[in-house]
Amino acid sequence: MPGTKLKWLSLAGAMLLSAGLALAADAPAPKPSPTMADILAAAPASAWRALADEHTLYMELPAGRVIIELEPSLAPHTVANIEAMARLHYYDGLAILRLQDNYVAQWGDPDGNRKLPAELLTLAPEFAVPQGTTLFTPLSDHDGYAPQAGFVDSFPAARDPDAGLAWLTHCYGAVGVGRDTDPASGNGSELYAVIGNAPRHLDRNVTVVGRVRQGIELLASLPRGTADLGFYATPGERTTIKSVRLASEVPTAERTRLEVLRTDTPAFAALVDSRRNRHDDWFVRPAGYIELCNVPLPVRPITTAH
Amino acid sequence: MPGTKLKWLSLAGAMLLSAGLALAADAPAPKPSPTMADILAAAPASAWRALADEHTLYMELPAGRVIIELEPSLAPHTVANIEAMARLHYYDGLAILRLQDNYVAQWGDPDGNRKLPAELLTLAPEFAVPQGTTLFTPLSDHDGYAPQAGFVDSFPAARDPDAGLAWLTHCYGAVGVGRDTDPASGNGSELYAVIGNAPRHLDRNVTVVGRVRQGIELLASLPRGTADLGFYATPGERTTIKSVRLASEVPTAERTRLEVLRTDTPAFAALVDSRRNRHDDWFVRPAGYIELCNVPLPVRPITTAH
Repeated sequence: MPGTKLKWLSLAGAMLLSAGLALAADAPAPKPSPTMADILAAAPASAWRALADEHTLYMELPAGRVIIELEPSLAPHTVANIEAMARLHYYDGLAILRLQDNYVAQWGDPDGNRKLPAELLTLAPEFAVPQGTTLFTPLSDHDGYAPQAGFVDSFPAARDPDAGLAWLTHCYGAVGVGRDTDPASGNGSELYAVIGNAPRHLDRNVTVVGRVRQGIELLASLPRGTADLGFYATPGERTTIKSVRLASEVPTAERTRLEVLRTDTPAFAALVDSRRNRHDDWFVRPAGYIELCNVPLPVRPITTAH
Repeated sequence: MPGTKLKWLSLAGAMLLSAGLALAADAPAPKPSPTMADILAAAPASAWRALADEHTLYMELPAGRVIIELEPSLAPHTVANIEAMARLHYYDGLAILRLQDNYVAQWGDPDGNRKLPAELLTLAPEFAVPQGTTLFTPLSDHDGYAPQAGFVDSFPAARDPDAGLAWLTHCYGAVGVGRDTDPASGNGSELYAVIGNAPRHLDRNVTVVGRVRQGIELLASLPRGTADLGFYATPGERTTIKSVRLASEVPTAERTRLEVLRTDTPAFAALVDSRRNRHDDWFVRPAGYIELCNVPLPVRPITTAH
């Protein structure tokens, strides 16, 4: 009886929302079926955090700005390397080299002869790192690719509690470090973003450094490369990268001020549940499950004065 | 010890391949680490089947041909409806109306005033159908969204053995029937293709009718719509569909002759295992798991004379 089940799930969602958002006693009763928009509208300012300007890259393409937030807690040395390269303007004038449909957009030095300071050239891989004191918000749903899936600082992640290791996962928009067969051959000079169904089999085989917070569609809508692995067959097909800058090095007036919903908040827990059991009128059969990479990580412009 | 594990997994893969492909006694020993290319090259002609011309649509866009194979066994009435519309040239001159990043491309009648014969207008939904005698090849890996995931006739699918129901799943390239809130409001006049991370929560909420076998990148690389839900804000942004034809109604010389790897074959079982445990040199840590929508469904031109 889908109707009966739907009703029950809606009630469960409302109860979670009621408990999770800790509404004041005189607040209006929560709607029985909160949508994502309802939940975001009700979330307090403290449920959001601004992107970290010192760890955010602006990649300027002809079509606009791609905004990548890096997550130093799960790839500290690699993130530091990439930020050093951005400060050196290393990426300026490089190109999107590869666009493989349902997989990745990859960028780097087309000619392979751009010089890097020696200290940036080699780097131990950070496919998974000791979790330490990093806050991990588990997702209760089963994950096929890891002992436990969840979120670290509004990034999709996974961990192995027995081994004490955590890593960023290959969800849509994930940014990782291209490498050759040698696991230590990636230094951040060549990066890729996931533009297709989550290739989670790459987890723990590549250092993932962050996530595209805005503008992934500027990469995902590029023409596909026709050579092997989606590389562009001719230089003329490539998209040139005008520049890559740390947000903290861009004049304040030119920054794109964004905030992301914090994943360690009751509002996020309510959001996950509302997406796990979609109870808007259109759905006749809520899934009762959500896969890590289908969990939305809402980003919005910061509109209030700070 | 990733190295040790890798070696063990390679041996396991080789044993499966050896058993699965039923090599003749005098055949050379199988390679210890078969790649997808190895497996496909070794697959006999009988492991492939030609696309069914009578159930295959050619959607002609300015950028080229999108080839959609329909699967009548899991949505018989809806597929028949769509084929009838194609025979009537109903879709000719319609447009891609919506391109929502990481989600769907959707097409239909922009003005909503194109006439359809009355018998095509309403149709009971086929969100899941009695499986009957349909051959279902299970995937042994856990699936979060269904009691059992697998394949029907080279389409990704799922089933509920207790209920005796099966359905096509929302993997990348899946083609489904747009509908309004009323579950019976979809008749096939508006269709969509998945161009992002598999929205499996749509399973059993929409009638899925088939899969793009070639040309999905022509949809996935279109500009994203900027209005709500990725609809194009202005008519000029839409892509016009020149025509949609059944392959069987196109002159033989104009057909694109493709074949797909059969999912009920030992070659496919070997392929799944090789992708579940990637043992080419690049991978340091095979996943030991594969999610339904990450299983490749190889398609290639038919090169032999028939």
